[in-house]
Amino acid sequence: MPVGTQGTVKGLTPSDLRASGTRVLLANTYHLMLRPGSELIRSLGGLHRFMAWDRPILTDSGGYQVLSLHELAKVTEEGVEFRSHLDGALEFLTPERAMDVQADLGSDIAVTLDHAVPLPLEAAAQRDAGERTLRWTERSLRRALTLEPPGGYRQLLFAIVQGGGDPALRREMAERTAALACDGFAIGGLSVGESKETTWRLARAAAEALPADRPRYLMGMGTPLDLLDGIACGIDLFDCVLPTRNARNGMAFTSEGPLNIRNSGHARSDRPLDPSCSCEACALFTRAYLRHLHLAGEILAHRMLTLHNVTFYQTLVQAARRAIERGDLSAYAREFSARYRERGGDPPAPP
Amino acid sequence: MPVGTQGTVKGLTPSDLRASGTRVLLANTYHLMLRPGSELIRSLGGLHRFMAWDRPILTDSGGYQVLSLHELAKVTEEGVEFRSHLDGALEFLTPERAMDVQADLGSDIAVTLDHAVPLPLEAAAQRDAGERTLRWTERSLRRALTLEPPGGYRQLLFAIVQGGGDPALRREMAERTAALACDGFAIGGLSVGESKETTWRLARAAAEALPADRPRYLMGMGTPLDLLDGIACGIDLFDCVLPTRNARNGMAFTSEGPLNIRNSGHARSDRPLDPSCSCEACALFTRAYLRHLHLAGEILAHRMLTLHNVTFYQTLVQAARRAIERGDLSAYAREFSARYRERGGDPPAPP
Repeated sequence: MPVGTQGTVKGLTPSDLRASGTRVLLANTYHLMLRPGSELIRSLGGLHRFMAWDRPILTDSGGYQVLSLHELAKVTEEGVEFRSHLDGALEFLTPERAMDVQADLGSDIAVTLDHAVPLPLEAAAQRDAGERTLRWTERSLRRALTLEPPGGYRQLLFAIVQGGGDPALRREMAERTAALACDGFAIGGLSVGESKETTWRLARAAAEALPADRPRYLMGMGTPLDLLDGIACGIDLFDCVLPTRNARNGMAFTSEGPLNIRNSGHARSDRPLDPSCSCEACALFTRAYLRHLHLAGEILAHRMLTLHNVTFYQTLVQAARRAIERGDLSAYAREFSARYRERGGDPPAPP
Repeated sequence: MPVGTQGTVKGLTPSDLRASGTRVLLANTYHLMLRPGSELIRSLGGLHRFMAWDRPILTDSGGYQVLSLHELAKVTEEGVEFRSHLDGALEFLTPERAMDVQADLGSDIAVTLDHAVPLPLEAAAQRDAGERTLRWTERSLRRALTLEPPGGYRQLLFAIVQGGGDPALRREMAERTAALACDGFAIGGLSVGESKETTWRLARAAAEALPADRPRYLMGMGTPLDLLDGIACGIDLFDCVLPTRNARNGMAFTSEGPLNIRNSGHARSDRPLDPSCSCEACALFTRAYLRHLHLAGEILAHRMLTLHNVTFYQTLVQAARRAIERGDLSAYAREFSARYRERGGDPPAPP
């Protein structure tokens, strides 16, 4: 899922997103709640009409943004108190409000509020946040039953599984969450300071304890190689700002490995970003032109690299889907990873 | 002609420009000469291939940018000395270099180098700049005959008519320029401090003295109402940064008059920017959404307002062309102007 934080995927129109192969995108409850406000979006028919996107939208619950953007956010049993990054106004996000806002937005998939914690952290605090997440999940799900999104259809409800850095706690939390009446699961609180090896041990522990007949979504990851590792763990859905954020820094993902368009080696290059990509940027423009646009600060550079990177990610997961259908995922992942690593490896994860 | 200063019209792709009705665009010799350099563009096949634009391109000569961007630019008979705004390097623009660069770019229409002056100015200095412009025009045209653009086809050559603030001098310069072997004429040095009334008196003096069988291009203007006034004076071609620059400031031109999307009156508006426009922005998005994007600093706002404004300008001149064909221009202009003025008038001219 490309990330459309503020109700737009950085410079792309709905038709660009369809052309990239995007089927579902993510929008951030936290940002839209503060600006332009969820009530305004509801009054205009919901987020699909607001951003003119007629395919599925998943909204997160806002919990991650509140806790990661606000050092002074105060967690109580009732919810999280924080100050708006826009005007400093005191805000209070509860499980109930998170679902109210998402119902206003009218996303197809709404996510319960969780209490995410950074790692490393002492065991008691991890247990505490996990138990609170379970209680907030129950409150979120209960509230959601009372709400009516614009248009009147039912939202799918995904419950977030936390559990900190302990695989046993992750497994327990997954099992207890799986017992709740929800349509799918989001695995949260990963890639928050732990090693990559630990990330996958924890993701696998949670994924294996979740029922195979409901989708599993790994929140906030990752690089192209992360996606393949996640898929191998049984993950069905991902979201990540890497393709869009890195595009603005001049970084393009390609089948030949990542490249930075600022590099002087591209100054006279008449090659496309990625010769095996069919996006508009690769069909029309040379690296030399895109480098010129980027250095000149032209927004067409951001737009074209964003379109390309989103297309690259969608092409990657499409190929993985086909490999799964052929029963051939591990061979595909091995071959892609070897070629990708050889050509410059995996870019650093987002901060 | 939308302005593609650095080889791109602010966020738009070639297909966006075609959809807007754009037939010919302008690129700035000054900017492209300094970055990425005209030799690089030639080596990649010329500006059409570089920016993937397969319709006509007009390049200016760089003279206006050099003199307007550089207070310390030094004019001698040989040319203009200035320092690059990018790295401070000393540069020298002569009539010959202006044509060399434009041949490298491979534009369809190249423009001769002129000596533009601000108004008001004493008569002797106006005469002096006019005479120098004529000598530079002859040198430019002579040089152009020796050049071969990438692709090998001949560029059309437009000669700039100066003449300062004196209609008689304007007329004389136009007549003497018309005697030269060129394909069309550019009227320069207007909208540089004089009143609008004076602008039109001077433009008309020049236009009437130019032969009717070669195109007349009024440089650097103007507002929608300016275009109608210019067409009434016999002007065939215009370029202006207003539609693209104002878009970035949230200003949209509409058939109901100009509007600023930041205005809180649009916060909950489910109307398009312009109900009589068929561009993608008007087909898909409400004012409320575009306002949200603009306030959130999202580049889709700039892209959509740019697309709309360029479409508005193209629609305006298309309607004027049809009115001319019907023999009905003055009625059309009168009706458009009355409606447009009534709904908020003409926005201020660019600085």
